[in-house]
Amino acid sequence: VFKARMGLGATRSSGRCPCPWQCSLNWITFKGWVRSVRSQKEVLFLHINDGSSLESLQVVADPSLEKRDLTFGSAVEVQGKLVKSPHKMQNMELQAETIHVVGPCDIWSFPLKMKERHPLEYVRQFPHLRCRNNTLGALLRIRSEATASIHSFFQDNGYVHIHTPIITSNDCEGAGELFQIEAKESVEKSHFFNVPAFLTVSGQLHLEVMAGAFTHVFTFGPTFRAENSQSRRHLAEFYMVEAELSFTESLQDIMQVMEDLFKTVTSTVLSKCPRDVELFHKYVAPAQKVMHVTGKNCNPVIISYSEAVEILKQAPQTFTFKPEWGCDLQTEHEKYLVKHCGEVPVFVVNYPYDLKPFYMRDNEDGPQHTVAAVDLLVPGVGELCGGSLREERLPFLESRLQRYLDLRKFGSVPHGGFGMGFERYLQYILGVDNIKDVIPFPRFSHSCLL
Amino acid sequence: VFKARMGLGATRSSGRCPCPWQCSLNWITFKGWVRSVRSQKEVLFLHINDGSSLESLQVVADPSLEKRDLTFGSAVEVQGKLVKSPHKMQNMELQAETIHVVGPCDIWSFPLKMKERHPLEYVRQFPHLRCRNNTLGALLRIRSEATASIHSFFQDNGYVHIHTPIITSNDCEGAGELFQIEAKESVEKSHFFNVPAFLTVSGQLHLEVMAGAFTHVFTFGPTFRAENSQSRRHLAEFYMVEAELSFTESLQDIMQVMEDLFKTVTSTVLSKCPRDVELFHKYVAPAQKVMHVTGKNCNPVIISYSEAVEILKQAPQTFTFKPEWGCDLQTEHEKYLVKHCGEVPVFVVNYPYDLKPFYMRDNEDGPQHTVAAVDLLVPGVGELCGGSLREERLPFLESRLQRYLDLRKFGSVPHGGFGMGFERYLQYILGVDNIKDVIPFPRFSHSCLL
Repeated sequence: VFKARMGLGATRSSGRCPCPWQCSLNWITFKGWVRSVRSQKEVLFLHINDGSSLESLQVVADPSLEKRDLTFGSAVEVQGKLVKSPHKMQNMELQAETIHVVGPCDIWSFPLKMKERHPLEYVRQFPHLRCRNNTLGALLRIRSEATASIHSFFQDNGYVHIHTPIITSNDCEGAGELFQIEAKESVEKSHFFNVPAFLTVSGQLHLEVMAGAFTHVFTFGPTFRAENSQSRRHLAEFYMVEAELSFTESLQDIMQVMEDLFKTVTSTVLSKCPRDVELFHKYVAPAQKVMHVTGKNCNPVIISYSEAVEILKQAPQTFTFKPEWGCDLQTEHEKYLVKHCGEVPVFVVNYPYDLKPFYMRDNEDGPQHTVAAVDLLVPGVGELCGGSLREERLPFLESRLQRYLDLRKFGSVPHGGFGMGFERYLQYILGVDNIKDVIPFPRFSHSCLL
Repeated sequence: VFKARMGLGATRSSGRCPCPWQCSLNWITFKGWVRSVRSQKEVLFLHINDGSSLESLQVVADPSLEKRDLTFGSAVEVQGKLVKSPHKMQNMELQAETIHVVGPCDIWSFPLKMKERHPLEYVRQFPHLRCRNNTLGALLRIRSEATASIHSFFQDNGYVHIHTPIITSNDCEGAGELFQIEAKESVEKSHFFNVPAFLTVSGQLHLEVMAGAFTHVFTFGPTFRAENSQSRRHLAEFYMVEAELSFTESLQDIMQVMEDLFKTVTSTVLSKCPRDVELFHKYVAPAQKVMHVTGKNCNPVIISYSEAVEILKQAPQTFTFKPEWGCDLQTEHEKYLVKHCGEVPVFVVNYPYDLKPFYMRDNEDGPQHTVAAVDLLVPGVGELCGGSLREERLPFLESRLQRYLDLRKFGSVPHGGFGMGFERYLQYILGVDNIKDVIPFPRFSHSCLL
């Protein structure tokens, strides 16, 4: 209770309160970094932050305790008595008896300045120091809570967690944008793994393997694209939540899991980090962007790909890419569809057969031939999740990968799954424009700092 | 409750019990894979497993329901009534009304055979099917529980989870055994990231960055070594739990976290997957190996490196590597030390200054100069965790990496941390000899299947 209220920097001091009764009840040591120093004639005010929340603890001290290296950014240990604050702004304050500067901070070369709201572009230049910034600190706490909540969500629903491999000799999506890996100091001329090896683009194939033994599996790990892009939408290394469900015969089941995952994780984040989320919604995101996340009325809409194309064709605006049945939905189309549906999440189902990869389940319809695929589009971000029923019928898959076929030979079951981009999720709920600002150490073309 | 008891394959059927009262209470649909078929004159017995536990559900049916493709390995949906079993071996059994073979299994080409206890070496050949094996199934459930428990342990103790990067331009340990990465289809002659980029060998540096803003941080992700080894101890891709604690001035604090982590995760695994663990302790591990994990009396011993060398020097046995102060402890030494201490976990602290990397904290002792480093050695595995206090004093670090120094300039604090090999942890608690058998998709030199 004590730590929960006071942050992790607080420990009961081994020392004793110097009062005549030597009460030890509120006598603590608080450790953290100085966020502000305000020296008045009669009293010295400090704000100390230990990273456990956005709030800093106010320290009140005698001006005689001030010293030259007690500056913004320095690390300190403060001993004193925790009392109810007379101010409205905070619950408690610490009446300091001793202040020890553990690590001074050279404020002239420290790129962060006291009480300044640095733009995200500015702090991005300092990968090793930007976590000291309020906005990034809040982001990292939210990211941590969301991560824990994703693990809990799946575990509570009986999913088995699988560490799908990072290095693979496959290319799930058939995409060309792969990273190839090789031992730096190859002893032999041959490949380290005998075959060319790549960084994974998706854990789906490996989850499908596991869905042949467990009814529900998930993974949550890094995936990679060697996309030569500096855009605000792309990273070379990003995190994906992927799930696979066996004995599933309808897209509805898949969509239900996507929706439950989204709602559970978001409500956990909102209830565990209200102040951190508030910072984003107040200072980072345009207000209208996040309505649908915090609002009660954010139930998703379901439309078919064919309906989507009709909506686009009837749109009063002109698109750069003309909407046409059989063509991929572009970002401009996705944005319009979301707006058209009232700025709520939109499931688009049943995409053209020729647009989607071989493993998606044939709807056997016509003349407009489709597969049981689903994308979840959300305001501000576009595609957040993609999923499908997988083709479980051997004849439909013939002439494909032998191992993929093998999985269908030995007790094949109808199954389906989806993936959710974790950074896009964070962008969406927080309204962050640039994907580089929602990951601790962004990697993209021409940039791999630290 | 219903699903928890019955496994995830069980769903209440939308159908109705055909009894005159149409009771729907125990009328269920159970989905899973056939583990055994036993056909008697009067009755047909099946065992169906849905992967949620080692136990299969016994299905009792009229022999008329048997069909040709109802074989070992096939996927089925069974509808019927769940009743108390008259047999001692199981609680419940399912009296089948209908049996539907969802996916047949070609038993002649299926490499797993009914009721056979295949050796781990055998199933390792089938990366896409080995999860159907009992032992691997149990391992994957245990791995999943351990993963969830590691996340909960740190979250409950106020740690912020950080996704440390997989791709990095640094080489934390200064080791040569790196994997280098490059875009497969480089458009330009230059590097994708402008600089040579590698797969991470440790998240420590990035956690240290974060320990400058949060008092407690952790990461749990893949790490890589391009070690040209096929040994039972090495993988090219493995998982590591790493933690970093700020404002920490004693190795004792670090050791306490290691011990708490180990005990918490292990007791969770033992209580959540008792049958799965039992399988390993009964059939896979030599009995004496796992005593210390399940036994109550497994408190670790702490000895200094200097004491360890003395113990080794006085050992009645001859070592391949002669023990000598200033030399690294070899596997044979570690084994002897663990045995000498009574086959319990052993912390070895304060290693020679010249043996350890630059970032470990100088103990400023002499003439035998040491650093505040700690290794945790465990029976059967050897080194399970390694940690240290980090050198937080700028002058001690001068002439090193500029960014590493920067971290010490702006509010540097005494801190320390450690890493635990997740596969080694699983080997230890389960008594598994070969590291390839505790990871879903093992990668090692000359092998990257699937």
